[in-house]
Amino acid sequence: MKLTHFDEEGKARMVDVSGKPPTSREAVAGGSISMKPGTIRLIKDRQISKGDVLGVARVAGIMAAKRTPELIPMCHPLNISSVNIAFDIDERESTITIKTTVKMTGQTGVEMEALTATAVAALTIYDMCKAVDKEMVISNITLLEKRGGKSGEFKRRLKDEG
Amino acid sequence: MKLTHFDEEGKARMVDVSGKPPTSREAVAGGSISMKPGTIRLIKDRQISKGDVLGVARVAGIMAAKRTPELIPMCHPLNISSVNIAFDIDERESTITIKTTVKMTGQTGVEMEALTATAVAALTIYDMCKAVDKEMVISNITLLEKRGGKSGEFKRRLKDEG
Amino acid sequence: MKLTHFDEEGKARMVDVSGKPPTSREAVAGGSISMKPGTIRLIKDRQISKGDVLGVARVAGIMAAKRTPELIPMCHPLNISSVNIAFDIDERESTITIKTTVKMTGQTGVEMEALTATAVAALTIYDMCKAVDKEMVISNITLLEKRGGKSGEFKRRLKDEG
Amino acid sequence: MKLTHFDEEGKARMVDVSGKPPTSREAVAGGSISMKPGTIRLIKDRQISKGDVLGVARVAGIMAAKRTPELIPMCHPLNISSVNIAFDIDERESTITIKTTVKMTGQTGVEMEALTATAVAALTIYDMCKAVDKEMVISNITLLEKRGGKSGEFKRRLKDEG
Amino acid sequence: MKLTHFDEEGKARMVDVSGKPPTSREAVAGGSISMKPGTIRLIKDRQISKGDVLGVARVAGIMAAKRTPELIPMCHPLNISSVNIAFDIDERESTITIKTTVKMTGQTGVEMEALTATAVAALTIYDMCKAVDKEMVISNITLLEKRGGKSGEFKRRLKDEG
Amino acid sequence: MKLTHFDEEGKARMVDVSGKPPTSREAVAGGSISMKPGTIRLIKDRQISKGDVLGVARVAGIMAAKRTPELIPMCHPLNISSVNIAFDIDERESTITIKTTVKMTGQTGVEMEALTATAVAALTIYDMCKAVDKEMVISNITLLEKRGGKSGEFKRRLKDEG
Repeated sequence: MKLTHFDEEGKARMVDVSGKPPTSREAVAGGSISMKPGTIRLIKDRQISKGDVLGVARVAGIMAAKRTPELIPMCHPLNISSVNIAFDIDERESTITIKTTVKMTGQTGVEMEALTATAVAALTIYDMCKAVDKEMVISNITLLEKRGGKSGEFKRRLKDEG
Repeated sequence: MKLTHFDEEGKARMVDVSGKPPTSREAVAGGSISMKPGTIRLIKDRQISKGDVLGVARVAGIMAAKRTPELIPMCHPLNISSVNIAFDIDERESTITIKTTVKMTGQTGVEMEALTATAVAALTIYDMCKAVDKEMVISNITLLEKRGGKSGEFKRRLKDEG
Repeated sequence: MKLTHFDEEGKARMVDVSGKPPTSREAVAGGSISMKPGTIRLIKDRQISKGDVLGVARVAGIMAAKRTPELIPMCHPLNISSVNIAFDIDERESTITIKTTVKMTGQTGVEMEALTATAVAALTIYDMCKAVDKEMVISNITLLEKRGGKSGEFKRRLKDEG
Repeated sequence: MKLTHFDEEGKARMVDVSGKPPTSREAVAGGSISMKPGTIRLIKDRQISKGDVLGVARVAGIMAAKRTPELIPMCHPLNISSVNIAFDIDERESTITIKTTVKMTGQTGVEMEALTATAVAALTIYDMCKAVDKEMVISNITLLEKRGGKSGEFKRRLKDEG
Repeated sequence: MKLTHFDEEGKARMVDVSGKPPTSREAVAGGSISMKPGTIRLIKDRQISKGDVLGVARVAGIMAAKRTPELIPMCHPLNISSVNIAFDIDERESTITIKTTVKMTGQTGVEMEALTATAVAALTIYDMCKAVDKEMVISNITLLEKRGGKSGEFKRRLKDEG
Repeated sequence: MKLTHFDEEGKARMVDVSGKPPTSREAVAGGSISMKPGTIRLIKDRQISKGDVLGVARVAGIMAAKRTPELIPMCHPLNISSVNIAFDIDERESTITIKTTVKMTGQTGVEMEALTATAVAALTIYDMCKAVDKEMVISNITLLEKRGGKSGEFKRRLKDEG
C-alpha cells in the first residue's frame, strides 16, 4: 500500500500518467449542508419568487470544477467535458444534498473535480445564507461512483443516506 | 430575516461594505476527514519518515484561503493578514480534524476564507490518499468562532466533537 | 495630453498611486447585446419558468469584476466593496441592456471593474444562447458615470439610448 | 429551439461533449472601439515613437483567450493551439477595429475564446487611454466566422462594416 | 535566527501582520538573462522595426507582480500601487539586465512582488527567443533595495555587476 | 533566424501548433539559489526536525508548472502529465540546486513549464528564508534537456555544475 503522490524518497510529485491510454471517465461525488429549518425554508421559497441561492451555488460549483488543478497541488490539469450539479432539498431533515457528476475522456480520473465542485457549491450556500444562519454544517463530502480507467468501477452507498 | 446577497428584486449582488469602518477580524473554522485505520496510519507514519501528506495539505489550504473571492461568487476580495491551519490526528476514531484561523483588518468578515481553506486542506488529504482509500468522508466543515465587526463575537461548540 | 500608463521613454508601467489619498469611488458602466426576437423571448420566458440566462450572466459579471486586474495589464489590484449588475430586456428592440455599478474606497477609480463586469456578463449571455443565435452583437460598452478621486464627477448620456 | 446549457428542469450545466469526435476548429471574432480624433492620433503616433497601446492590448487579448473558461461559467476548458489579434486603425472614423482568430483541434468550438480575446483587447485600449478620453465606446463584438464541428461553416457580414 | 513562516512546531503558516501599521514600502529587484550574440542582436533590432520582445516581457512581468500571492505560498495578498520594469541591453556581454521597482502602502514588504516580476519577465524573454537560442541562462535574480517597514532600508551591490 | 512568436509584420501571436502531431515530450530545467552558510544550515536542519522549506518550495513549483500559460503570454495551455522537482543541498558552496522534469504527450514542448516551476521553487525558498537572509541570489535557470517534437533531443552541460 503506497501513496502514489510521493516518490521513493518521500518527495511529493505529480504522478506520471503520460503512458496511460485515454479512456472515458466519470465520477459522481456527494455532499450535504444542514441548517436551521428557517434557513432551508428561505432557500426553498426564494427559488420560486426572488433570489435563487441554489442557482448561484450551481454556477460556483461548475466553475470550481474547472479550477481543481489550481487548488489541489498534485492534480493534473484536465479538459473536463461535462459537469452537472443537482441539489435535493430535504425540509424535514433541514438538509440540502448535493450530487455532482463530471465526465471526461483522458488519462486520469475526475474524482477530485467532482468533489471540489461539491465542496464549493456547499461553501457558496453557506456564504449566501450566513447572514441568517452561522451554524450550518457541511458534511458527507465523498466519492459516490467512479467509472473508467485501470481501477474499474467503484460504487458506494452512503450510510448517512441509507 | 433576509439574505443580504440579494437585493429587493431577488437579484444576486456583492453586498456594499464601503460604508463600514475597518475593524480587526478573526474567524476560526473546523472540519474533519475520516478514513480507514490503515490510511491514517500511513499518514501518521509518513509525517516522520518520508512524504508529508499534511504538509502538502496545509500549503494547499493556505493558498486556497487567498483565492476564496475567486471561488465564492459574492465574497469580497480581501487582503487577509494571517492564516494558520492545525491538524489533529485521532487514530482511535480514524479521523483527522482540521482547524483554520484567519485574521485581517477590514470591512468584512473572514469566515469564508477560513471555511474554504479547511475544505481545500481536506480535499488535498483526499487526493493524496485516494489511491489507497476511496471511501474517505469529509464532514463537520463549520464556523467555530468569529470576532470583530458589527455582529460581534460568535462561538460554537460542535456536537460532533463532544 | 499624455497616456499615463507609459513613462517618458514610452515604456508601459502600472501608474504609481501610492501618494494618492483613499477616497470613496463609484463607477457605472453600460452595455448592450442585441439578438433575434426569438432569442430574447427565450431568455425572457426562461427567467420565469426554467433556466435563468440572466442569473448566470450576473454571477459571471460579478466574478469578473474581481478579476479585472488579472485581465487588464496595467490595472491596480483593488478590494472592491460592492458590485451590482442590472439587466433591462427591451423586447421591441430585441436588446438586453446591462448596467453595472461598482463601489470602493481606495486610491484609484473602478471604471475598468465596471466595464469588465459588463463585458463578461454580455459574453456569458452570448455563450448561453449561441446554440440558437450566432449573430448576437455586443455594443455600447462604455462608462456612464464616475464619482470620487481627483478628476471629480463624470456623467455621460449615451446617444444610442437617447 | 432550446438552450443547451440548461437541462430539462432548467438547471445550468456544462454541456456533455465527451461523445463528440475531436475536429479542427477555427473562429474569427470582430469588435471595435471608437474614440475622439485626438485619442486615435495619440495611439497611432505612439506606435512608432514611444508607448505601444496596441502592443499591450494584443498581449492582454491573447492571454484572455486562454482564461475564457475561468470567466464564462459554462465554457469547457480547452487547449487552444493558436491566437492572432489584428488591429485596424480607421482615423477618419476615429475607430479601431479588432479581429481575433483562434484555432484548435477538439470537441467544441472556440467562438467564446475569440470573442473574449476581442473584448479584453478593447477594454485594455480603454484602460490605456482613459486618462485622456473617458467617452470611448466598445461596439460590434460579434462572431464573424466559424469552421469545424457538427454545425459546419458560419460566415457573417457585419452591417456596421458594410 | 528563525524562519518566521513556520510556527514553534515547524508548521508552515502565513505570518500574522495584522498588528503592523501600514507604511510606505518600496522594493527594487534585479536579474539578468544571457544569450548568444545573435539572439541579443535580434531582440535589439526588433525593438525598433518589428516585434518587440521586451515590450511583451514587460507586460508579463507587471502582470506577474500582481499574481505573486497566488504563486508564492506564504505571501500575503497585497494591493501594490506601482510597478516599473526597466531593461538594459548589454550587447558586449550578450546580456539583458532587468530591474523592477514595486511600491505600496501596507503592512508587509513587496520584495517578492519585485523578484517575481523580474523572474517572469526573464522567463518571457526566454520563451520569445527559445526557437533560436535554447541555451539562454537566467541569473542574478536578487533583491537590490528595500525601503519602509520595521527592518528599515536595505541596499545591496551585486558582485556580478562589478 | 526568426522569432516564431511574431508574424511577418512583427505582431506578437500564439504560434499555430494545430497541424503538429502529438508526440511524447519531456523537458528538464535546472537552477540554483545561493545563500549564507547559516541559512543553508537552517534549511538542512529543519528538513529533519521542524519546518520543511524545501517541501513548501516543491509544492509551489509543481503548482506553478500548471500555471505557466497564465504567466508567459505566448505559451500554449497544456495538460502536463507529470512534474518532478529535486533539490540538492551543497553545503560547501552554500547553494541549493533545483532540477525539474516535466512530461506530456502533446503538440508543443514543455520547456517553459520546467523553467517556470524551477524559478517559482527558487522564489519560494527566497520567501521562506528572507527574514534571515536578504542577499540570496537565484541563478543558472536554464534548460538542461529536451526530448520529443520536431527539433529532436537537446542536452546541455551546465558549466557551473561541471
